[in-house]
Amino acid sequence: MPTTPAFSTAAPRHAPLAVATRGGAVESVHFGSVAVVDRAGRLLYATGDPAVMTFTRSALKPLQALPFVAAGGIERFGFTPPQVALLCASHAGEPRHVEAVADMLQKSGSTAADLQCGTHAPGYFEARGEVPPPPPYSPLAHNCSGKHSGMLAYCAQHGHPKDAYLDPTHPLQQAIRVAVAEFTGVAHDDLVAGIDGCSAPNYAVPLSALAAAFARLADAAPDAVYGRAPATLSAAMVAHPEMVSGAHRSDLALMHAGRGDWVTKVGAEGVQAIGIRSQGLGIAIKVADGQKRGLYPAIVDVLDRLGLLDAAARASLATWGHPTVRNYRGLATGDVRSVLVLDKQ
Amino acid sequence: MPTTPAFSTAAPRHAPLAVATRGGAVESVHFGSVAVVDRAGRLLYATGDPAVMTFTRSALKPLQALPFVAAGGIERFGFTPPQVALLCASHAGEPRHVEAVADMLQKSGSTAADLQCGTHAPGYFEARGEVPPPPPYSPLAHNCSGKHSGMLAYCAQHGHPKDAYLDPTHPLQQAIRVAVAEFTGVAHDDLVAGIDGCSAPNYAVPLSALAAAFARLADAAPDAVYGRAPATLSAAMVAHPEMVSGAHRSDLALMHAGRGDWVTKVGAEGVQAIGIRSQGLGIAIKVADGQKRGLYPAIVDVLDRLGLLDAAARASLATWGHPTVRNYRGLATGDVRSVLVLDKQ
Repeated sequence: MPTTPAFSTAAPRHAPLAVATRGGAVESVHFGSVAVVDRAGRLLYATGDPAVMTFTRSALKPLQALPFVAAGGIERFGFTPPQVALLCASHAGEPRHVEAVADMLQKSGSTAADLQCGTHAPGYFEARGEVPPPPPYSPLAHNCSGKHSGMLAYCAQHGHPKDAYLDPTHPLQQAIRVAVAEFTGVAHDDLVAGIDGCSAPNYAVPLSALAAAFARLADAAPDAVYGRAPATLSAAMVAHPEMVSGAHRSDLALMHAGRGDWVTKVGAEGVQAIGIRSQGLGIAIKVADGQKRGLYPAIVDVLDRLGLLDAAARASLATWGHPTVRNYRGLATGDVRSVLVLDKQ
Repeated sequence: MPTTPAFSTAAPRHAPLAVATRGGAVESVHFGSVAVVDRAGRLLYATGDPAVMTFTRSALKPLQALPFVAAGGIERFGFTPPQVALLCASHAGEPRHVEAVADMLQKSGSTAADLQCGTHAPGYFEARGEVPPPPPYSPLAHNCSGKHSGMLAYCAQHGHPKDAYLDPTHPLQQAIRVAVAEFTGVAHDDLVAGIDGCSAPNYAVPLSALAAAFARLADAAPDAVYGRAPATLSAAMVAHPEMVSGAHRSDLALMHAGRGDWVTKVGAEGVQAIGIRSQGLGIAIKVADGQKRGLYPAIVDVLDRLGLLDAAARASLATWGHPTVRNYRGLATGDVRSVLVLDKQ
């Protein structure tokens, strides 16, 4: 990491996305940007700065799986559709997730000891509003363990050493970088690289390019470059959203509400990417401050403004789109609500 | 709580305060505002919107204690200076805090069962990076239990019923509202009311008015309205910052760095107020999105730009002002740094 990067002090062109209220007044504001594009990558609607360079974080996972899937990795190791979904997952570390990841590792000749994602408390405790047990935790319960198991399987598939599989110069990571550039339509040298929470290389791209990648991912037709791989990944994510996410979590709620038409992935630091198969749309949202609190109301409002919510979807997403804020005694003290303005381009 | 308040969709005039980086590039941006005033309330420096209406949250605690202290409550119940500091505290629920609060309750004839602040895990676990034990938790460990003990003592002092001491119409809360208006210089009817996390009434005031209140609080001279009460409160906070805050927490670090000259209080949702006794200055900061991540670098940078940091203070605050961000394996992935521009008025 360079220690003295240069930073512009010019105000980013983010716009208000959502506010948190208290007693009927605005207490806090979440700024951010939105890009909505078609399959050709044309910008249709925007809020704030749709070109803002955005670290994709976990929204990159389906793209990180492309080299493995396109080279026949699923068939080679006999990964089931729920396991394909786990390649793209930020899972909650529930028993079903941990067991399926352990099986993926076994199928490609690796073990949990090969995972270099690190460890954290299984996410399902937080999703349930419970306090997790104290450490140590298994790397199998790390939200990215499915992605890492796919990375290790790629190494087995291609005969690459797996001890340095997260090094940006490793052939796996080089293949992923090529795929990210190709699939987002960003020049290889224009990708901005960083290290993710799980220690894998991650990339920043313009927000609209992330949206375009999800429009492409959601397309059921064979991809010009990656053939059936994108549709295979998105079909598994849509069929098994509980493996991409977890009980009581946002991506599961969104894909349930989409009833097969929406493929979506949240990323750390306030990122969401959504592909709408029927409409050929890609949506990407970045909350400038990185908080999920502002993200969920913005997502639901964007879907609503695009005419994608019927009564059932609107009802099932109501508590994500307009949550009540309660204090330590359970009293309602305010709410969180979208204030975004989506401008037609 | 009104269910349909009107919200302006006009962009608030917040400005970038701090950024979080990854791999040498900006990943996230924290917007917000800063106001720096003198004892007369004149605006000297500003970032963003120094007039933004700001819920004061726990930065209000010294003001909430004014009616009790001004009416001789400390002497009446024999509260020690550390207990006076606890009146103004967001403490970490350490044993020293819990024991001192229990003694405050005993001195005024109340018990922990009278506290209506609710419960949460003692803060010192988070401050140490540890997982807290599962509930139930004692209300004595709630970060506001010292404030609530003072509120109960006020009821005993004045013969008011204590069962509804948090009701906005209760004489205690009416007295506090009068004090907040008077001490911030905001007209009584211009205060915006809400319910705090601890269920006490809280008020929003212009950010510059919060700054002015802390300039006044830090003044060692007798106050024209409240006599020795403000100086008594600020002297106790400065002498016992470990009771206002807790080990490894920001207000303790700040008051240590200030070596008796700075009286400060953090509030939820990204609020900080600081009074600088020697300079007759008041500083207030609001991070628009409410996150502490953006707050700490902004605080240290504002203090630095005002010429208030010598080498020792700068060194002791370095990790607050420019923290390194590490991932699940402890790898440095980026940092958080101030980008604020403080404009002379």
